[in-house]
Amino acid sequence: MELGLRGACGPAEPGPCLHSLPGEEQATWALSPGAAEAEPERRAPAVAAVLPAGGSGERMGVPTPKQFCPILERPLISYTLQALERVCWIKDIVVAVTGENMEAMNTIIQRYQHKRISVVEAGVTRHRSIFNGLKALAEDQPSSKLSKPEVVIIHDAVRPFVDEDVLLEVVTAAKEHGAAGAIRPLVSTVISPSSDGCLDHSLERARHRASEMPQAFQFDVIYEAYQRCSDYDLEFGTECLQLALKYCHIKAKLVEGSPDLWKVTYKRDLYAAESIIKEKISQHICVVVDTKENEEHVGGLLEKTLKNELNHVKVTSGALCHIDRDLQQNILQQCYSFVCVNVMTSDFQETHKLLKMLKESNLSSLYPVVVISVHFLDYKSEPFGEKMENLMQIRKFAKEVRKRNILLCGLLIYYPQDKQKLQESLKQAATIIASLIRERNSALTGQLLVA
Amino acid sequence: MELGLRGACGPAEPGPCLHSLPGEEQATWALSPGAAEAEPERRAPAVAAVLPAGGSGERMGVPTPKQFCPILERPLISYTLQALERVCWIKDIVVAVTGENMEAMNTIIQRYQHKRISVVEAGVTRHRSIFNGLKALAEDQPSSKLSKPEVVIIHDAVRPFVDEDVLLEVVTAAKEHGAAGAIRPLVSTVISPSSDGCLDHSLERARHRASEMPQAFQFDVIYEAYQRCSDYDLEFGTECLQLALKYCHIKAKLVEGSPDLWKVTYKRDLYAAESIIKEKISQHICVVVDTKENEEHVGGLLEKTLKNELNHVKVTSGALCHIDRDLQQNILQQCYSFVCVNVMTSDFQETHKLLKMLKESNLSSLYPVVVISVHFLDYKSEPFGEKMENLMQIRKFAKEVRKRNILLCGLLIYYPQDKQKLQESLKQAATIIASLIRERNSALTGQLLVA
Repeated sequence: MELGLRGACGPAEPGPCLHSLPGEEQATWALSPGAAEAEPERRAPAVAAVLPAGGSGERMGVPTPKQFCPILERPLISYTLQALERVCWIKDIVVAVTGENMEAMNTIIQRYQHKRISVVEAGVTRHRSIFNGLKALAEDQPSSKLSKPEVVIIHDAVRPFVDEDVLLEVVTAAKEHGAAGAIRPLVSTVISPSSDGCLDHSLERARHRASEMPQAFQFDVIYEAYQRCSDYDLEFGTECLQLALKYCHIKAKLVEGSPDLWKVTYKRDLYAAESIIKEKISQHICVVVDTKENEEHVGGLLEKTLKNELNHVKVTSGALCHIDRDLQQNILQQCYSFVCVNVMTSDFQETHKLLKMLKESNLSSLYPVVVISVHFLDYKSEPFGEKMENLMQIRKFAKEVRKRNILLCGLLIYYPQDKQKLQESLKQAATIIASLIRERNSALTGQLLVA
Repeated sequence: MELGLRGACGPAEPGPCLHSLPGEEQATWALSPGAAEAEPERRAPAVAAVLPAGGSGERMGVPTPKQFCPILERPLISYTLQALERVCWIKDIVVAVTGENMEAMNTIIQRYQHKRISVVEAGVTRHRSIFNGLKALAEDQPSSKLSKPEVVIIHDAVRPFVDEDVLLEVVTAAKEHGAAGAIRPLVSTVISPSSDGCLDHSLERARHRASEMPQAFQFDVIYEAYQRCSDYDLEFGTECLQLALKYCHIKAKLVEGSPDLWKVTYKRDLYAAESIIKEKISQHICVVVDTKENEEHVGGLLEKTLKNELNHVKVTSGALCHIDRDLQQNILQQCYSFVCVNVMTSDFQETHKLLKMLKESNLSSLYPVVVISVHFLDYKSEPFGEKMENLMQIRKFAKEVRKRNILLCGLLIYYPQDKQKLQESLKQAATIIASLIRERNSALTGQLLVA
């Protein structure tokens, strides 16, 4: 069963893809209200993106260039590609990588099934890499296989959290003004040193901004700017907006971006990126129960406790009998965290059904999927040691699904008659579940925890 | 047994305190080679620090001001105080907090036993807060209880990773030049917008720097600058170096700082800070064994595997018999991660001894201490279920020590006769141990994991 999670406009990351195809005027641009009112009949432009990814990442202090550093075992650049790819009106994405990383890049594209990507060779500087990307899109180049877009987005491989809103904003502004770029307030005051290493003057912080990415340009503008600019610019320049200004007299429109646009530069940024990604994919927990009678059922109680204890997390539930439609819908909506309650059926029956479904869905190709197999211990019916011993089979199942990027853990919940004690058990279970889902720690697969 | 971990010059954080008292000429300043050669007989100045901490943290997107946000359950500002406090030649640290946070600040100082701290009321802007801090150190103020330093460091409450080297550098440079500050290369290009929200011009990145903290000043220079500066400066200014330039004509010496000087500004920075702190306190694992015959012993094998598998981590070992001196030394050197091997003695005997010692040492007052109680399962002598049931007592012990900020987990390692299988068990054990130590996840206390 291929669920086809990543269709034309399907979100590759949690959150909806806001817009439809660029040809579909209303749907595509309607959500940019100001622009739509001002110019209701304008045509959606053909849009491509260029992603310079030739950097060596020397500031990171690690041998791997930062765009190839793994986050949850997947290279950073793949997250950025995913963020661009889910915007269905971006027709082509051109990535510039150095010759030595060409093969690695192609492997990434294949492995994570990235679409609409072309790879070109990076230059020795950022500007030269961007220029190479633009050449691949230009019609005057004999080697160009892509069609020339009206507007081109330039983005960084190491800014994975770009969202569709800001992309739409810069593209809309670029169509109107010729060039546009995201900016952010300065975090530190900027100063100008004198040649002897002393302070010459400091800049007023309120009157300056940090120039971030994405930026967008009318293709003809930026391509002309790159064709006309000097070797010095290509070698030492850092700002595409400046090239458009200097060589085409285009004053770029500046768009206030969100803090999410930050660039992964240092090792600490990798830590931050990992935490943000973990948080994003842990916002939705699906509780799978092996019965439909929810209310009085202990699975229902656990679900209620999860809802009470985990604010900010969406908790939904479904039964697996005959592969339930709601649950399929949950998987289609890209939930990466499952709590599978085995009560009515034998020890792992429900968990096996869920694992089978997950394996077939391909859901875990982009993110590790957490499955917590929940079991209850009623003292009266089975001794603790024996129950534990039975449940230790989970080690074997976990090892098998680990290869598929599924992290399976067991959770045995004490089920005392005393209502208050049961509540305590369930609360502790919720804490453990939240933590397993939040941390996505592969070292804990196959473990049987007790609440 | 009070081990007195945080004596006059004892490191409160992993890593040595490089320098001795400021009166001790050679020891204090010898490590700043250039300066020492140029001026071999100069006197070490009296140094104090001012820490403005009155910000509301609105950029963080959380209601708590960022300096009070918890990292591993301890407020961020406490880490910064700890970083300054461990530099024994800083005589006084003046913190400026708003009236409403005064009580919280005093509680933090008491709870984490911060020394040499005075609290003053913050002003409504950063400059006003710093001015209040300086007034507390000035002799001309009737309320001043502290003695006027020769050099004053100004630092941010939200830059916890400042180290002694850079503090020494800015203080040395300030003594010579009157003012000095740490700078960093710009991460983004800085631009100047025009009034219509378009690009006016962009600044050449290579010719500008980000002004970071710490900064240092001859006290008389910066105090005079604050006394003479305008209300506009106090209200809208952001740069102390600029005040020294404008009002005292002092051109500050700029000192290249390390990436560690970054300022916790956004939520992602809290994630990064937490990861960095976790990494720092996980660099050293102490393996506690209940026998001295190490080589052929299974505890010795585990230690060897840990050493092989965990590069970058220092693994030391010691026995607890009669509270071993080496182990005490380890605790004194501030190791926050213990693997306690119970082989020769009854189930938890060795773990209990270690826990008792840790509780008495006060080691866990600043960071959560991880203790992993390791046990071996020999199939022949005891059935698995029974062993598990016995070891589940760990839940009770874990709950008790959790209150003391000690995170206790159990780890049961299969001990097959087959050498290769044993090696696999030990390798998995090493992975689990590394992960428990790295994550310091309080939700897992009391769990019994199996390798």
